[in-house]
Amino acid sequence: MGIKISFSCFYSMYILCVFLGTQDSAQGRLLLIKKPDPNDAAATARWLVSQNSWGVLNTISTDLGGAPFGNVVSFSDGLPDKGRGVPYFYLTTLDPTARNALKDQRSSLTISEYPIGTCGKRDPENPACAKITLTGKLKLLEGNSKEVEFARSALFTKHPEMEGWPKGHNFQFFKLDIEDIFLIDWFGGPKPLTIDQYLQCNKNEVAAIR
Amino acid sequence: MGIKISFSCFYSMYILCVFLGTQDSAQGRLLLIKKPDPNDAAATARWLVSQNSWGVLNTISTDLGGAPFGNVVSFSDGLPDKGRGVPYFYLTTLDPTARNALKDQRSSLTISEYPIGTCGKRDPENPACAKITLTGKLKLLEGNSKEVEFARSALFTKHPEMEGWPKGHNFQFFKLDIEDIFLIDWFGGPKPLTIDQYLQCNKNEVAAIR
Repeated sequence: MGIKISFSCFYSMYILCVFLGTQDSAQGRLLLIKKPDPNDAAATARWLVSQNSWGVLNTISTDLGGAPFGNVVSFSDGLPDKGRGVPYFYLTTLDPTARNALKDQRSSLTISEYPIGTCGKRDPENPACAKITLTGKLKLLEGNSKEVEFARSALFTKHPEMEGWPKGHNFQFFKLDIEDIFLIDWFGGPKPLTIDQYLQCNKNEVAAIR
Repeated sequence: MGIKISFSCFYSMYILCVFLGTQDSAQGRLLLIKKPDPNDAAATARWLVSQNSWGVLNTISTDLGGAPFGNVVSFSDGLPDKGRGVPYFYLTTLDPTARNALKDQRSSLTISEYPIGTCGKRDPENPACAKITLTGKLKLLEGNSKEVEFARSALFTKHPEMEGWPKGHNFQFFKLDIEDIFLIDWFGGPKPLTIDQYLQCNKNEVAAIR
């Protein structure tokens, strides 16, 4: 009986792998969660955010006459394959992005499918090579709340070297409170997607543990 | 004599390759121009711009309350290994970025070394994994000027599928007139770099044809 269950479990995992497929990412790791169907906007959006480890975080630069200032940052929305959709960051005010956000929280995070390595020969600007921009408010997490613990765990798991970054640089945890989602994952313009649809989608997680 | 010259040329190319090194990029092509020394800010900046094919272009979104809106775009600063440093884009007003720029030209282009594939195991936010933000004005190129010809050639060579994009979408050429450069390529904060130093640096080109 025990053997039967084990075999059944092994067989299910095998079928799951064949069904879901495995894809090489640009970073050399295997993606266990296959890119969702482009018609499923919420799942695609969550996949893009949870599979990427970095993006461009945009703020309003007071130093540069109110210009939109993009900065390459690492982020995490949770433990690997257990993302919740809200991006967290580990930033220092030695960098203009954190300074800008403390003066004006308006911000966006932009992520491309291209560096994941699943766009094939498509151009990075081809609409079938997905991209997402989450617009909202970039907020400093203060104190030692549960959310700070979550952010620390989410970030340090995906970005192990962060834990050793210089204490004197005063890195702090920030999060993006999402107010608008711009998603292109196929031809025909941006996909309609509400914040609730995005945050409540658990298909990636379900797919990973099914 | 002819044989001697050919051999000498071949030998020089061989030495050049050994000297410059070849590096695998994330896109699977060989980089013939090695990453410059981080102390050479101008060469590093030009290398980042000429070796990358895409970045995040940020504009001010009137639709989203003046928020900074980043968008994944393809760009080119010239023919392969002959970049001039000024990024050109092929955009349609079906997309918010071009619409935003026609209302407010303030813009920035953000590029990371990470997708080039030369950061090794460094985190994308590690300062030794270089990043650059060019801030300035995003301008529509009108008419059939020599600059439009240059932009077309620069973009369609690096992004061949662009030439076949739907005519009805009214793609147009834009360029970023650079007013400020934010470059991080090592520890110790942003590297001082003027627009003139950046535009007048031809080390990449020299290294390629030396």
